[in-house]
Amino acid sequence: MKPAVAISGNAGPKVRSDCEITLELKGSGGIVIDLTSKVKTLYGESIVNQVNDMLGFFGIKNAHVRINDSGALPFVISARLESAVKKITDTDLEYLPAFLPENNYSTTRDRFRFSRLYLPGNNPGLMINAGLHSADGIILDLEDSVAPDKKDEATILVRNALRQIDFCGAERMVRINQGERGISDLKQIIPHNVNLILIPKCESPDYIFVVEKEIEAITKKLKLKNQVFLMPIIESAIGVENAYAIAKSSENIVAMAIGLEDYTADLGVQRTAEGKESFYARTRLVVAAKAAGIQPIDSVFSDVSDMEALRATVLVSKSLGFEGMGCIHPRQIPVIREGFAPDEAEIEKSKQIVLAWDSAMKNGLGVVALGSKMIDPPVVARAQKTIDLAIRLGLIGRNWIQDISGENKL
Amino acid sequence: MKPAVAISGNAGPKVRSDCEITLELKGSGGIVIDLTSKVKTLYGESIVNQVNDMLGFFGIKNAHVRINDSGALPFVISARLESAVKKITDTDLEYLPAFLPENNYSTTRDRFRFSRLYLPGNNPGLMINAGLHSADGIILDLEDSVAPDKKDEATILVRNALRQIDFCGAERMVRINQGERGISDLKQIIPHNVNLILIPKCESPDYIFVVEKEIEAITKKLKLKNQVFLMPIIESAIGVENAYAIAKSSENIVAMAIGLEDYTADLGVQRTAEGKESFYARTRLVVAAKAAGIQPIDSVFSDVSDMEALRATVLVSKSLGFEGMGCIHPRQIPVIREGFAPDEAEIEKSKQIVLAWDSAMKNGLGVVALGSKMIDPPVVARAQKTIDLAIRLGLIGRNWIQDISGENKL
Amino acid sequence: MKPAVAISGNAGPKVRSDCEITLELKGSGGIVIDLTSKVKTLYGESIVNQVNDMLGFFGIKNAHVRINDSGALPFVISARLESAVKKITDTDLEYLPAFLPENNYSTTRDRFRFSRLYLPGNNPGLMINAGLHSADGIILDLEDSVAPDKKDEATILVRNALRQIDFCGAERMVRINQGERGISDLKQIIPHNVNLILIPKCESPDYIFVVEKEIEAITKKLKLKNQVFLMPIIESAIGVENAYAIAKSSENIVAMAIGLEDYTADLGVQRTAEGKESFYARTRLVVAAKAAGIQPIDSVFSDVSDMEALRATVLVSKSLGFEGMGCIHPRQIPVIREGFAPDEAEIEKSKQIVLAWDSAMKNGLGVVALGSKMIDPPVVARAQKTIDLAIRLGLIGRNWIQDISGENKL
Repeated sequence: MKPAVAISGNAGPKVRSDCEITLELKGSGGIVIDLTSKVKTLYGESIVNQVNDMLGFFGIKNAHVRINDSGALPFVISARLESAVKKITDTDLEYLPAFLPENNYSTTRDRFRFSRLYLPGNNPGLMINAGLHSADGIILDLEDSVAPDKKDEATILVRNALRQIDFCGAERMVRINQGERGISDLKQIIPHNVNLILIPKCESPDYIFVVEKEIEAITKKLKLKNQVFLMPIIESAIGVENAYAIAKSSENIVAMAIGLEDYTADLGVQRTAEGKESFYARTRLVVAAKAAGIQPIDSVFSDVSDMEALRATVLVSKSLGFEGMGCIHPRQIPVIREGFAPDEAEIEKSKQIVLAWDSAMKNGLGVVALGSKMIDPPVVARAQKTIDLAIRLGLIGRNWIQDISGENKL
Repeated sequence: MKPAVAISGNAGPKVRSDCEITLELKGSGGIVIDLTSKVKTLYGESIVNQVNDMLGFFGIKNAHVRINDSGALPFVISARLESAVKKITDTDLEYLPAFLPENNYSTTRDRFRFSRLYLPGNNPGLMINAGLHSADGIILDLEDSVAPDKKDEATILVRNALRQIDFCGAERMVRINQGERGISDLKQIIPHNVNLILIPKCESPDYIFVVEKEIEAITKKLKLKNQVFLMPIIESAIGVENAYAIAKSSENIVAMAIGLEDYTADLGVQRTAEGKESFYARTRLVVAAKAAGIQPIDSVFSDVSDMEALRATVLVSKSLGFEGMGCIHPRQIPVIREGFAPDEAEIEKSKQIVLAWDSAMKNGLGVVALGSKMIDPPVVARAQKTIDLAIRLGLIGRNWIQDISGENKL
Repeated sequence: MKPAVAISGNAGPKVRSDCEITLELKGSGGIVIDLTSKVKTLYGESIVNQVNDMLGFFGIKNAHVRINDSGALPFVISARLESAVKKITDTDLEYLPAFLPENNYSTTRDRFRFSRLYLPGNNPGLMINAGLHSADGIILDLEDSVAPDKKDEATILVRNALRQIDFCGAERMVRINQGERGISDLKQIIPHNVNLILIPKCESPDYIFVVEKEIEAITKKLKLKNQVFLMPIIESAIGVENAYAIAKSSENIVAMAIGLEDYTADLGVQRTAEGKESFYARTRLVVAAKAAGIQPIDSVFSDVSDMEALRATVLVSKSLGFEGMGCIHPRQIPVIREGFAPDEAEIEKSKQIVLAWDSAMKNGLGVVALGSKMIDPPVVARAQKTIDLAIRLGLIGRNWIQDISGENKL
């Protein structure tokens, strides 16, 4: 039997943009709302209206609602209240805030994934401005950053965030939980335009198949259009053993990450700066990913205050073939983006490839050589990607071809 | 046709606790015994009685027996005489000394295997006090430390040692030979309570299956109760290629070791202190073992006089995920045990995990979190093992929980 | 429709031992030959005769032939003219120069392959004296060193070189192209006693099977006797993933090489002197090769002027288990040969093994031990190979056994 009182959300001196809602079902007396909020004068009435609306939506007529507000936006309040309602009733209804039209974008298989910012799934304060940091991806995390008894609340909050927060073009990612919980996460998350699902502690292709099947079922049923990509995270010895099998297990996998905290715990070793203990796993993962044609992504760097060590780590990651890294603080993003960006030599070579290809196409040639090397379409595509990124990063101008032609004329 | 004279055992200035027996069958003249021994005054009569008993047991009525004794215990004398008899007769009889009741113990899948002491299978002098050195395991070796023409003698000596020497709780291990010889070793060894069989130069699961089938046949036939665990040793490139397949090929495998002398010979490279030539093999073996849920065990360290280098090697081994190492001299044991023991940080973390679990169990919670990490039963079991070991090693007191509770009350 | 004019071969200030032939078909007027050559006085007449002969062979009666000669040998001139003819006619005829009888040798599975010299397949100037540099193998390259539009010419030149150049006992190797072009290369090359085919950018056993089947078809059809060995080159992440499967995919594979320029490009990383970015791939390839019983061969070293760096690289290669390296300049050969040669300790150990075996054979023993290690035939074979090489390299005398026996007698 469900309890008659439920608490949802967070309160406390450090909490911001959140609220704690205590919902008590009553036999009579109508809806009684106690609101504590610093912004009560400004928003008190609209909060009360929202709560009354929602309780009507869920068919609750008699209840005592205490709201301890720390500046929660409407979608946060509705997430907290819906969570509370679901703890004490059997409703399957979802109270969905509007979906921002600017969030209805897709991403592509080959887009850069240098930096992806982890956001704890039950912490709205960190989510709201996350899109401003120019991370390549934003991860709303339902797994390790959410305490076990907060999983249900977090899932509803993340769902609402996907509909209401503008992530400014960052790839919209959700890290689901492991096992069956992860599969049920999909039901609540996929309908709200997730670009990519992170699959934690992935150990074998079997789980990928289950995830894929569930996503397919949801997208078919709801006639969703956007593609959902997958990024398994390898965090155990058995995951490393199966890395290549995992990497090639689905067409929807576009990247594979390693999680070194859990991996070193699984091995029973300390994680060191030099990383000898995980060198085999990291290099094997890079090869497995590249062999499967997907992006290898490195682990997060846990010391958010040491930017120099982060920079050094990124350079090693890149030198080994990784193409990105997780971030646990926005200040890590520019260091990571810069570290993984193509350097001068790479840009120069890419220019030559693209120029040779363009010139060959103009001359009607079917095959193109640079020096004695044949250039084929995948090589050209990779070079073009490097050029595009260099332009986006401001490393070269958009008109670099004309600039070069101009120089040649002088 | 068998020869009429056989020599068995060892003699010489460096030999101790052994004897050399020359047995010559005669057509008549009864049993003639020539005994040379420094302890003849004390034990001469009992030795002569033992020899007469045994020859009677084997049905030998006329023979000349020369015994060059260096202080052999009765089980050694009987092993040497049985070997000699079997070289010149066709008997299948076994002259078994009594089985010490204190040797009838089992071990467990997860017990620590930090140190295991190799003992040459044909050298009784090194065996007798081996149990006093507190190694986690004692290996009676029938393979590389026994010269090809001494294999038969060694097998009988090892059989008798398993029955007569008190190994003081150390895991009772035998390293069998390769190929068919190894399978026939099992017939003679398994009936005498071997806890673990080391399988040298293991190249594929196929041989594991043969070993397993043979052990099963023997234990069924003799209705043996104790479980026999397996530890394959990887000593070749093909073994490394098949490491994961080998590691998971049998439920009875509890650990997998690497043997670097043979491995580097197979690769045709020199073995160096830095070990770059075997880094791939060692790290791959660690991952294969962990992925299969068994213990990865490192190679022996061959310089028995350099304790500092051994200590450094152990720390590298542990940092890579190995959980033990072979010993070729008793003095290596304490250094290895100490090196693989859990350090302060590990103990502290394990305490927290065990405390969080205990507290959750007391409060009737089904799931437990430490910080934002969920703790599940295997994590708790591993933490409890670390605690247990820390207690056994005297690193923390048996009542550490009460001690902490007491502190908290102050 | 084929053009009426074709150009074949090379001319220019840096070209030597080559010629450029422009062949223009005419409706009438017979054969008109314009020869430009510094050696016209000496060889002009024989060149003109050769061209007339060949055009007769191909049934061409009216043509204008311009020859810009830089000292081309007859087999080069015929290759160039045949190429030109095939560009403008549909002939399947081959104008084969004589096969030098001294080139009709075979090699063996286990021969040393320390150094193998790459020769661009369309550059006769580098081929002619290549046999004098004592490389273990000579590679006539049809792949990356030949520009796409020169592939046809190169194939004919290489075919003629295989028939006409004395490679002085070096293993006769050809690197074919990738994909279908590589298979059609085989048709033209295999009939001319190729000892070994290098298969570039090998990604899986499938391509090996195709190559093998084609070679088998050709050797059966032409009743060829000499065995054609295979050496796949691993140059991509997927090749590394499949390294062991490739290595054991055919009995004819005797070695497997890694190509680090393409491999690092595939990973998208820079190639460094320390080589951390390819350490996993290199060590995995060594293990895969050794597990399959074949020779692991390291990548070429690209800085042809830095002999010290080359020497250091060779020593690292050897220490990891590689047994050879490609050369892109003859001056690299002695450094590589010396670096991979057995050192004193290896020679000494090999001597002991061979002596122990010889002595055991003399005494009619079936098993042989050196110390406590059993010596079996493959160990002896390896030791004998080391001895043989040491003799070939002048490191020990041919009569070393007698020399040792003599010493012992003193």
